[in-house]
Amino acid sequence: MKLQEYFLLPGPTNVPPNVIRAMSKQMINHRGPEFKAILSGVTHKIKKVFQTEGEVFTLTSSGTGGLEAAVVNFINPGDKVIVASIGNFGERFRDIAKMYDAEVDFIDFGWGNCIDPQVIAERLGADTDHQIKAVLCQHNETSTAIVNPIGEISAARGDHPALLIVDSVSGLGAAPFDMDGWKVDVAVTGSQKAFMSPPGLAFVAANQRAMKIAKKNQNRKFYFDLIKAQDMLEKGQTPFTPALSVLFAVEEALRHIEEVGIDAVVADHYKHRNLVRTGLKAMGLKLLAPDEIASPAVTAVACPDGIDPLALRKVLREKYNIIIAGGQGKFAANTFRVGHLGAVQSMDLIAVIAGLELALTELGADITLGKAVAEMEREMLRY
Amino acid sequence: MKLQEYFLLPGPTNVPPNVIRAMSKQMINHRGPEFKAILSGVTHKIKKVFQTEGEVFTLTSSGTGGLEAAVVNFINPGDKVIVASIGNFGERFRDIAKMYDAEVDFIDFGWGNCIDPQVIAERLGADTDHQIKAVLCQHNETSTAIVNPIGEISAARGDHPALLIVDSVSGLGAAPFDMDGWKVDVAVTGSQKAFMSPPGLAFVAANQRAMKIAKKNQNRKFYFDLIKAQDMLEKGQTPFTPALSVLFAVEEALRHIEEVGIDAVVADHYKHRNLVRTGLKAMGLKLLAPDEIASPAVTAVACPDGIDPLALRKVLREKYNIIIAGGQGKFAANTFRVGHLGAVQSMDLIAVIAGLELALTELGADITLGKAVAEMEREMLRY
Repeated sequence: MKLQEYFLLPGPTNVPPNVIRAMSKQMINHRGPEFKAILSGVTHKIKKVFQTEGEVFTLTSSGTGGLEAAVVNFINPGDKVIVASIGNFGERFRDIAKMYDAEVDFIDFGWGNCIDPQVIAERLGADTDHQIKAVLCQHNETSTAIVNPIGEISAARGDHPALLIVDSVSGLGAAPFDMDGWKVDVAVTGSQKAFMSPPGLAFVAANQRAMKIAKKNQNRKFYFDLIKAQDMLEKGQTPFTPALSVLFAVEEALRHIEEVGIDAVVADHYKHRNLVRTGLKAMGLKLLAPDEIASPAVTAVACPDGIDPLALRKVLREKYNIIIAGGQGKFAANTFRVGHLGAVQSMDLIAVIAGLELALTELGADITLGKAVAEMEREMLRY
Repeated sequence: MKLQEYFLLPGPTNVPPNVIRAMSKQMINHRGPEFKAILSGVTHKIKKVFQTEGEVFTLTSSGTGGLEAAVVNFINPGDKVIVASIGNFGERFRDIAKMYDAEVDFIDFGWGNCIDPQVIAERLGADTDHQIKAVLCQHNETSTAIVNPIGEISAARGDHPALLIVDSVSGLGAAPFDMDGWKVDVAVTGSQKAFMSPPGLAFVAANQRAMKIAKKNQNRKFYFDLIKAQDMLEKGQTPFTPALSVLFAVEEALRHIEEVGIDAVVADHYKHRNLVRTGLKAMGLKLLAPDEIASPAVTAVACPDGIDPLALRKVLREKYNIIIAGGQGKFAANTFRVGHLGAVQSMDLIAVIAGLELALTELGADITLGKAVAEMEREMLRY
């Protein structure tokens, strides 16, 4: 008999029982009044999470589909854009923008750092004739487990009119995000991260300034056309049949987020981040991100010398029923990642750290059993 | 208290209880061994439904996303293509192909007809230097409720090398389809039609000839890139996080389809088609499609003179908890459609026809109560 996994990926994430149950609802007419009410309610609540009064579009796709929509609607072929990257998803944003013929100025801040807003300020300051049309970056870079200072990056634009387009697929709901307050123009998220729902829906938020640009956009697009989505949204519909069950799940998850408030949800993510970091540090493991910029969604860890992260994850999965993620990109060979995004409890993190104590010991590392867990318990009693 | 609707749309369709329950499964790692086994099993079973030994790709999108994938991977910008249309989705296929710069020869066979293979044969026969790269058409045209003779259309190509690209979103599993036997090159379907699952996944099948063309395709695409999907499928993965819960549903639904066999599933659809047509005819209503080409997925009906289909559907919904579809496109103003696709039972159709007897009477039509139901019962006893 297979028991419930300890499931700590940076997406998909654990879905709470009531959210799972919300998917036991039968199909409804996606052109009818009940759907209209659900879509309208979900859109309203997601706006509060983005903290925007702009538009929010619901797309049936993974987060990457949402990123493609952000490129093909708001960037024109030939546009100069800055892609500010600190990891794998920065490179993906670059690849999508290049695919659609943007002229990309790729600024690589290096894996393990966050974006330096000063560099963005200088680059845009030198662009006196406003040839640069957009700055693209991640809110939370899942591969390196680092959060970018989106508010400061936005402010670094000064009077430059470039759009700020933010991939917040794994960031929104975990790290603070104030779309309108920070003057972010476009932001993308997904159902399977802090929204505690299964994958299948992406949400693209865009302010009026961005929508004006989208109206004149020259890129070829059909499925990801947000002007068409805007027309349909006025009727309470999506252009194409949406992933209804996932929408039912998101509706239920948003009920919880609204109830406790987005600030409390974000605060919980930081508590979990700090807790897992305490445990990992007590085990003597090296964390990739410095504390100040460490992600509240996921923690990336260097595997001790001589231990293969694949072997470690295999022991965790097969002996302790614990699922964590491997490293990504440049870090794939010698790191692993612990997700703490969405519906995570402190005791899940205790279980993961205890599992790591055991598995690392079995693989020959010198670990003082129970020490990391004890440190975490002490921290938990201080709350 | 809201009771279970009689839900007879041509998609999304009613999802059986065991398929709904399959979605109560918790998330799993989409880069892990369990996912690989599920994707491989689903792919294998869907190939049997398509009747192909070619590739089948699982995309997280509506059916339209699958149609876009079929265009951007297999048609090059500037390619001459024939779009053979008999309704709304023919026009959509044309719009997608044009969006991606195909030079479209749009052949409109008229709403209410099926495609005449002879016309395709003549058009391709005249194209002696093989400038036409593809023929695009619907298997089942949902708007007019008509099935096209795909096998004959395919054969009409003769020795012409044009690809045959078929939108079978609402056709596959309802009407016979023999992809390899008929030499169809590309076919698209969705999870929310005969597959008895919620919307959220599209499936694109492609043979070796089509995949060779896809490898050299010049269209810009990122999310819908099937060559990338092919690379990932070899590892048992999808390029981007898939709609896991919908996949769990499809897995369960396919178990049923495999158990009873695709021929029996298709035969049931024809039985339901005939039953609903018997009832509608007995009520004196005019059906849009002639019997020979009438869809096994949906039946389109002319509303009696003086009765507004919107008002009719409102009475059905509010008084009898019955959901049917409105007309589409040119037929929107004076028709309605009854879906009988996927998990439909004969008694659901009895309920719909009884509801129509009641609602039409209330709206002033001259209906002999019970007559249509009696005809259907007689037909059911003959099985």
